[in-house]
Amino acid sequence: MSEGKVTPGRIRLALEHHLTTPPDPERRSFLRRAATVGGGLLTATAATRALADEGLEKNLPPNVPAWTRALGAPILASPYGVPSPFQANVKRRESPGLTRTPQSSVSFTPLQNLFGIITPSGLHFERHHAGTPEIDPHQHRLMIHGMVAHPRLYTMDDIVRFPSVSRVHFIECGANTGMEWGNVAVPTVQYTHGMLSCSEWTGVPLATLLDEAGVDRRKAKFVLAEGADGAALTRTVSMQMALDDALVCYGQNGEMLRPEQGYPLRLLVPGVQGVSSVKWLRRIEVGDQLWNTREESLHYIDLMPGGIARQYTWIQEAKSVITSPSGGQVLLDRGYHEITGLAWSGRGKVRRVDVSTDGGRNWRTARLQEPVQSKALTRFRIDWTWNGAPALLQSRVIDETGFVQPKLRQLRAVRGTRSIYHNNAIQTWRVDATGEVSNVQVL
Amino acid sequence: MSEGKVTPGRIRLALEHHLTTPPDPERRSFLRRAATVGGGLLTATAATRALADEGLEKNLPPNVPAWTRALGAPILASPYGVPSPFQANVKRRESPGLTRTPQSSVSFTPLQNLFGIITPSGLHFERHHAGTPEIDPHQHRLMIHGMVAHPRLYTMDDIVRFPSVSRVHFIECGANTGMEWGNVAVPTVQYTHGMLSCSEWTGVPLATLLDEAGVDRRKAKFVLAEGADGAALTRTVSMQMALDDALVCYGQNGEMLRPEQGYPLRLLVPGVQGVSSVKWLRRIEVGDQLWNTREESLHYIDLMPGGIARQYTWIQEAKSVITSPSGGQVLLDRGYHEITGLAWSGRGKVRRVDVSTDGGRNWRTARLQEPVQSKALTRFRIDWTWNGAPALLQSRVIDETGFVQPKLRQLRAVRGTRSIYHNNAIQTWRVDATGEVSNVQVL
Repeated sequence: MSEGKVTPGRIRLALEHHLTTPPDPERRSFLRRAATVGGGLLTATAATRALADEGLEKNLPPNVPAWTRALGAPILASPYGVPSPFQANVKRRESPGLTRTPQSSVSFTPLQNLFGIITPSGLHFERHHAGTPEIDPHQHRLMIHGMVAHPRLYTMDDIVRFPSVSRVHFIECGANTGMEWGNVAVPTVQYTHGMLSCSEWTGVPLATLLDEAGVDRRKAKFVLAEGADGAALTRTVSMQMALDDALVCYGQNGEMLRPEQGYPLRLLVPGVQGVSSVKWLRRIEVGDQLWNTREESLHYIDLMPGGIARQYTWIQEAKSVITSPSGGQVLLDRGYHEITGLAWSGRGKVRRVDVSTDGGRNWRTARLQEPVQSKALTRFRIDWTWNGAPALLQSRVIDETGFVQPKLRQLRAVRGTRSIYHNNAIQTWRVDATGEVSNVQVL
Repeated sequence: MSEGKVTPGRIRLALEHHLTTPPDPERRSFLRRAATVGGGLLTATAATRALADEGLEKNLPPNVPAWTRALGAPILASPYGVPSPFQANVKRRESPGLTRTPQSSVSFTPLQNLFGIITPSGLHFERHHAGTPEIDPHQHRLMIHGMVAHPRLYTMDDIVRFPSVSRVHFIECGANTGMEWGNVAVPTVQYTHGMLSCSEWTGVPLATLLDEAGVDRRKAKFVLAEGADGAALTRTVSMQMALDDALVCYGQNGEMLRPEQGYPLRLLVPGVQGVSSVKWLRRIEVGDQLWNTREESLHYIDLMPGGIARQYTWIQEAKSVITSPSGGQVLLDRGYHEITGLAWSGRGKVRRVDVSTDGGRNWRTARLQEPVQSKALTRFRIDWTWNGAPALLQSRVIDETGFVQPKLRQLRAVRGTRSIYHNNAIQTWRVDATGEVSNVQVL
């Protein structure tokens, strides 16, 4: 630890961040009360700590909790296990009013509650255009046709028998952080950055399937991917991406895909906005022109300051965010805190993450969780001693291409304030003197 | 692919491995019947394939399935998502009769159904000695005492506020593959090797907590870890391991630990038999002698040929197993198959995995999933063209220390046949002429 020794008197609280997701007025007021008047939980802690200081050995055995005096649940109480009931508050959430129907909507990953780089599959964010279909994998087919010598129709049995690869990649919706273009719009990192998740994906390289179909490598320039959901969502993917690292995936974090992530088959185009990783994949058509489908012309375009919209802005550029402390959380104590968050780049690996606690005037370089993987989330951590004064927390990533995450001012100078997609500006969280953390904009 | 091109006519089947876990007589007989007389599923596949061969474009649009013609489930149908109902057969299983009570028992991970290296937390194997307690994290405490200057009693709030690390590590029960010492005992890889799982763990280095408590580094030689379950399970850990890479963990695959894996706190001693990674961790005592607790003297000892038992054999030596094709599965076709499995070492990284299809006479080197991580599962894959003749499939790992996974004969020469723990012999699966795969012993 570079900023002073951790002692028990100065560490307290952070579990609450993992049990409770603000905004939750009742919970927050409890925490504040506890902090200011020494309420229930902290009093108990102080008492047990006093016991320790007085020489624990003499008092053994200490109070034995109820669960140590009884048999627990039998084996296979859950043949497929679930989280503790005490974690019920750690869940995906919908932003009320953001979308018009529950079938065409978004749920956000609770980034403030997560550790490491893997997103539990049950908490992977969702973006559907016509709801989640329940697909019978025995009936599902993948068609490959267009500019190919041998059109193919594959069963899932066929697909999983091909040579496979597994890689860790993030998926980020192009609209992630989209509500922050103009003003501070939402209070927590779940809503600012929660259309972001990361999994170990398993599948067949799309290049293998295209080669099997005898793709015309001279003429073919693009592929169209189509989903089997009610939206029959379609997206154009460049042949370069298709032949580079795109995967036709059936596995996610060790098991078959979850229904909300495309069971039984999805496309994954690493580093590209999530909509291109078409879920419930049923068709790949090979062609030589952009398709200009509905989701490529009416939506997923970038409105520029002059009124012109950019189309086909695929790549998710380098971006980072501090997940703890973050908006809605409360620091109960001065002293040591670990600042931690996530960084990623659609262009490759994260090279470095810097953290500022004074709104960008001074920066220190954070530790990166190893191994750093290409087009995957990278967890960063840095030590911080909070002196009780207001602070402005920021993180800034630099990727292996040398791209530096922009300030909001820099991004607005090019893109204006009326865009939706591809907002990768530096995020600022304000810690006030009472320890409350909130979302603020520092240009 | 080194062994011939994959063509649709020669790929079929493997999804069944992921939907169905043998032994399941009804399912297997369906597969066999389908293979021999061209029954339902395969006939449908052949028909759709004929369509493809006749020129798919002319027949567009093809049959549109029901789920493409309707709205699917609304967003947040599962705020914490679960697998598809079609995956219900992918679950942990108990070996009937292996243990006497459901509170002191084992459940096995379905390795034959898994991809990559991450085990979904819901499928992580379980070994309990008094059932799974339901612990209130607000009431849970970790005591650190013994040969320390400052005994400590920590709340969970305290623990999660310490500087944290995340690492991917396997946990293998010392008794894994224990039923195979004498003869073939069980039919599937779930039961031969399924006390094995791998997660991204997050927590505080035990060394940090010991330093905080002022451990006496000259005198202290061991720590005792105690669980808060009804068994109050206790294990001695050497100070070297405690100060090296042991973690006090609260996170597993991105979220808080699952109840069966020690919620809210567990020890993780990487590379060491699972019992040492004490779950529901409540106490760390520092001392200068081995404790010789019940689980270190009556159990978890290695009975040697002369009648003497070895004690404190901590490390899980290098080991590997083919998970597909594996016992209970059926190959329906000759031609291309990917052979895949898992390799690991309690001493560090996997350096190389070789695969034999003729019972160990000839070996080829498999591809390793990158990045290879220390004391973590490593997925290996290799191409194979099955010519329809009986085959004996084996894998053999070599770790970074140069240790070569032993043949069963070599292991028995030293250890005899009446041991339980630390069986890391090469596993053999026999493929017979009908394609059925079974567990056999090749010395």
